[in-house]
Amino acid sequence: MQFSSTLLENAVNEFAKLPGIGKKTALRLVLHLLKQDREAVQGFGEVIIKMRQEIRFCQRCFNVADADICSICANSMRKQEQICVVETIRDVIAIEGTQQYNGTYHVLGGIISPLDGVGPDKLNIESLVSRIQKEHTQEVIFALSPNIQGDTTIYYIQKKLQPHSVKTTTIARGIAFGGELEYADEMTLARSISNRLPVESYVSNR
Amino acid sequence: MQFSSTLLENAVNEFAKLPGIGKKTALRLVLHLLKQDREAVQGFGEVIIKMRQEIRFCQRCFNVADADICSICANSMRKQEQICVVETIRDVIAIEGTQQYNGTYHVLGGIISPLDGVGPDKLNIESLVSRIQKEHTQEVIFALSPNIQGDTTIYYIQKKLQPHSVKTTTIARGIAFGGELEYADEMTLARSISNRLPVESYVSNR
Repeated sequence: MQFSSTLLENAVNEFAKLPGIGKKTALRLVLHLLKQDREAVQGFGEVIIKMRQEIRFCQRCFNVADADICSICANSMRKQEQICVVETIRDVIAIEGTQQYNGTYHVLGGIISPLDGVGPDKLNIESLVSRIQKEHTQEVIFALSPNIQGDTTIYYIQKKLQPHSVKTTTIARGIAFGGELEYADEMTLARSISNRLPVESYVSNR
Repeated sequence: MQFSSTLLENAVNEFAKLPGIGKKTALRLVLHLLKQDREAVQGFGEVIIKMRQEIRFCQRCFNVADADICSICANSMRKQEQICVVETIRDVIAIEGTQQYNGTYHVLGGIISPLDGVGPDKLNIESLVSRIQKEHTQEVIFALSPNIQGDTTIYYIQKKLQPHSVKTTTIARGIAFGGELEYADEMTLARSISNRLPVESYVSNR
């Protein structure tokens, strides 16, 4: 792509560094910004810079935060003795979106995956164990990816937690709401049969 | 979407204002930036702000420019007596990408479209006519959208140019390279038959 303006070219190149954004999309975004007010574009740039400069990670749960402790950990209305273990910040946002969970989180920062060179020492697992010990947590809920790495991570943490008397659970695996039985993979379908629920509890959850 | 950080939320909202970027994509982009160095993100924001503050439009052809005159108009190696009329800056970049054109451009800033409220007075047509008169242009090449609005715009400008002795041409319409005859629409196919080329000129163009 040839540009008659270096300013335009630099802006397009910066956008094209973002994941999933190619040169053509980057150009479309930059030409959109070019049509906006100078103040609006200044605001755009400043908000991004400020976010990166000032954002912090919660010292307790490693979620993103504006202060040392995130707003979820700081909220006394939430069940502080319940910890939902997730991989990333995105998972926290997804679960918060359901408005069904009222405990706290612990962001591992990934999942145990030896093939990708991610061992337990690279994740926030030690801090989770010491947190459970210190806070006398009652329940740990694993909300990890439904794959071998996720199961490995659950197994590893479960073993670490054995000395402590804490209830551990995992989110249910099964047929997705609105999903079709015939298109579900065999493993999911098999698990959803072996983990079947009494109809009364299903109806009361609706 | 619920965020535990206002800084994160503001950044996501800014990205989500861009065309074709929803909240989920915006979050993915912001979390990507969060993983980058502070300096890299600062660079990203500053390049965007600088682009919007300092970019100018060429006083001659209305292309984007770093100075009063764009680098294409300022280039004495290019045929200054040839003007390619296009709708937007994006078209200039597309034609420059072919490396087949060595003249100058004139960016109309749109196309005549009464239904969208775009009349000839909203486009850079007056400046094109006076430029052709002043510069004794030899050829005007229309590279506009192949639709009714494009044809209307060509017809309108063509009438305006009648008093001046200037050759006007339009880019060829026809079957796209690699396209299949049977899938071409009737109008394109009909035009490509009536505008057929001698084989010699076709072979020499390859």
